Amino acid sequence: MKTLEHVAQRIFDDVAAASIDTLGVTRESYGAGEEAAIKVLARHAASLGLRSERDPYQNLWLRLPQDTSDAPCVLIGSHVDSVPQGGNFDGLAGVVAGMLVLHQIQQQGLQTAHPVRTIAIRGEESAWYGKAYMGSSALLGKLTEADIRNPHRGGQGVLSDALRAAGVDMPRLLSGTPLLSRQNVSAYMELHIEQGPVMVNRQWPIAAVTGIRGNIRHNNVRCIGEAGHSGAVPRWLRKDAVLAVADLLARLDEHWRVLLQMGMDMVMTVGICSTTAQSHAVSVIPGEVDFSFEVRSQDIQTLERFHALMREECAAVEKARGVRFEFDRKMFTPPALMDAGWLERLDAAAARAGAALPHIPSGSGHDAAMFANAGIPSSMIFIRNENGSHNPDEAMDMADFLAGTDLMVQVLTTRNNGM
Amino acid sequence: MKTLEHVAQRIFDDVAAASIDTLGVTRESYGAGEEAAIKVLARHAASLGLRSERDPYQNLWLRLPQDTSDAPCVLIGSHVDSVPQGGNFDGLAGVVAGMLVLHQIQQQGLQTAHPVRTIAIRGEESAWYGKAYMGSSALLGKLTEADIRNPHRGGQGVLSDALRAAGVDMPRLLSGTPLLSRQNVSAYMELHIEQGPVMVNRQWPIAAVTGIRGNIRHNNVRCIGEAGHSGAVPRWLRKDAVLAVADLLARLDEHWRVLLQMGMDMVMTVGICSTTAQSHAVSVIPGEVDFSFEVRSQDIQTLERFHALMREECAAVEKARGVRFEFDRKMFTPPALMDAGWLERLDAAAARAGAALPHIPSGSGHDAAMFANAGIPSSMIFIRNENGSHNPDEAMDMADFLAGTDLMVQVLTTRNNGM
Repeated sequence: MKTLEHVAQRIFDDVAAASIDTLGVTRESYGAGEEAAIKVLARHAASLGLRSERDPYQNLWLRLPQDTSDAPCVLIGSHVDSVPQGGNFDGLAGVVAGMLVLHQIQQQGLQTAHPVRTIAIRGEESAWYGKAYMGSSALLGKLTEADIRNPHRGGQGVLSDALRAAGVDMPRLLSGTPLLSRQNVSAYMELHIEQGPVMVNRQWPIAAVTGIRGNIRHNNVRCIGEAGHSGAVPRWLRKDAVLAVADLLARLDEHWRVLLQMGMDMVMTVGICSTTAQSHAVSVIPGEVDFSFEVRSQDIQTLERFHALMREECAAVEKARGVRFEFDRKMFTPPALMDAGWLERLDAAAARAGAALPHIPSGSGHDAAMFANAGIPSSMIFIRNENGSHNPDEAMDMADFLAGTDLMVQVLTTRNNGM
Repeated sequence: MKTLEHVAQRIFDDVAAASIDTLGVTRESYGAGEEAAIKVLARHAASLGLRSERDPYQNLWLRLPQDTSDAPCVLIGSHVDSVPQGGNFDGLAGVVAGMLVLHQIQQQGLQTAHPVRTIAIRGEESAWYGKAYMGSSALLGKLTEADIRNPHRGGQGVLSDALRAAGVDMPRLLSGTPLLSRQNVSAYMELHIEQGPVMVNRQWPIAAVTGIRGNIRHNNVRCIGEAGHSGAVPRWLRKDAVLAVADLLARLDEHWRVLLQMGMDMVMTVGICSTTAQSHAVSVIPGEVDFSFEVRSQDIQTLERFHALMREECAAVEKARGVRFEFDRKMFTPPALMDAGWLERLDAAAARAGAALPHIPSGSGHDAAMFANAGIPSSMIFIRNENGSHNPDEAMDMADFLAGTDLMVQVLTTRNNGM
């Protein structure tokens, strides 16, 4: 009998080989690399003795051959696509974990309270069509006519062209028919590499996710001051847009520091910040600065309150410095809490194995957030990952991955787990 | 007899008409508009009964017909060129003032301690060849072979082409022969519009300039942090280049505020500040920010010390935030103090007329700075100007201009003025 590690490594290697790009792997949403990966997964599933089928939206479902139940299942899954020249583990690890769970149930003749199935979801990455969670949106009957008109990043065609080419049942998709709901899925579990550096820094091999941060964004805020000769306008007559924005950001950074001390969950990012290339100069007082604003939190009130605080500080800076701020549309993505009951079960299973299970918020979005916000009790396990995600240098240790997979087996097959 | 205002207005109008552009006036350094303006000035000088001649570098000198003295003169002047589509008064006002002073001496038979002459200087604006003070540098024997290779802003040719076409004696120019020194010019006086808003705000029609600010610049400072997923990296693991620069600028702005309270003369400007357009994004922690830095002061020690303070604060931010700063070459332009004796004489002349003469630093550079730093006692009178300079909306009130001209007459012709 092959070891679990050997089985997992073969699947990872074969999928990588089928989607290799110059640097890393490329598995375009509803494109060639993603389709190739799904075919490799189906072949491995067959050789493990699992049954596989495509749903009308071209996601791959796997189950045990003896599973003919009509009862709602516990669904393990993640996405198969990647960013351009991305890493092999972001997404794929969760699908392979589900295959390994089924394989272990099969091999060891384990009993589960509900049927356990695994899904390989398409189209999660926003890199290709500027929209994330296309596959899980479709599964929930929420992919709209407007969504499928989103243009491809390279300008070649729109999402609906790719869906059609991938064999998606378009009339059914556009009718908004959900394939996945509380009726046929009693719970959703997703294993995923952490996309940040926290677990590596904390030396946590695996962790349970408490929630997926939502965010409030402005893609563009403009600070408008007054341009002028840098030598000839004294401080009291200046309306310097750069110093106004620096003042604003220093205030917000300090609030953020204090709010963390008070135990709140949030991150704040100004990823874009620029004077106007057409008119800025070393010796001209900057008259305009454009910047982006993003706050993320698991807590919806923290999001709203920090956004309001930002607006208040803008008003204070306007008054103090004679500038004004103009805001584009406020964009809101709600946070998604992971299910408290499942979090407890994960903790209990880890405790039985003699290990504490650290908790961590997820800063990035996942299909699990879609399912949780659709009312399906959802849980996530994060695996430590050395070099961030969305790059070829993702580095998941196979021992960490197997520990996460084993925790899933424990939580799904242990007697008296309260299911 | 025509009023002085009428004389001045005609000269201003005729020069504007000879150099009108779609918006404002265009008098390119050593180019067509500048040459046309000089021809108009020479024609008006002749009709006022003044003698004019071109020097070998094509500047225009004006004197009284009876002035055949070999003694060092008091030279009144300014430049004739303008920025592209600039205003009519920046530069030209100082030349017209000199013509009016000569005209009044002539008309009223006034006595002066030294011969008074007027010069219309070419090539002051850096807008055309990226170098300022070409004309005054040439007059001082300081225009170098490297300087005249500077390319034209539009890419057509280099400065030496324009010099040659304008009739400049190139061998003499390149020999570094000064035409103007302490030997033939005992003092230099320049009237100029203020290029900032201070005098309008203070309701000062005219003011005496205390000195011309020098500056220390970095065209580019780079703050290098670490890019990362905005959702997945918590505050304690971030190296956010935007927040680091905001922190730095907030510190420097506060130092500036305090130093002004302590009576120091300085302005600080970060005219350019930008994340990297190729890689920045709303949800990516900014890994790099490029910005410019400029400090201006009349005091060389203030310049050096504030620059050192900036470097110290960069080091403190590096330590606090895990970023690093990279600096390009430090550029230094020395300040130029106006002559204390002439400043006293201007004050005294104003006091005799019953008016206090406000003092003001010049934030922008002027030919007077070149002459002052070459050891020629120099003074400047600023005229209030509504809408900044280097634009078609410059708005100098003729009454203010005549008040400035009259102050020159008073200081040059009053008995017992200590000359």
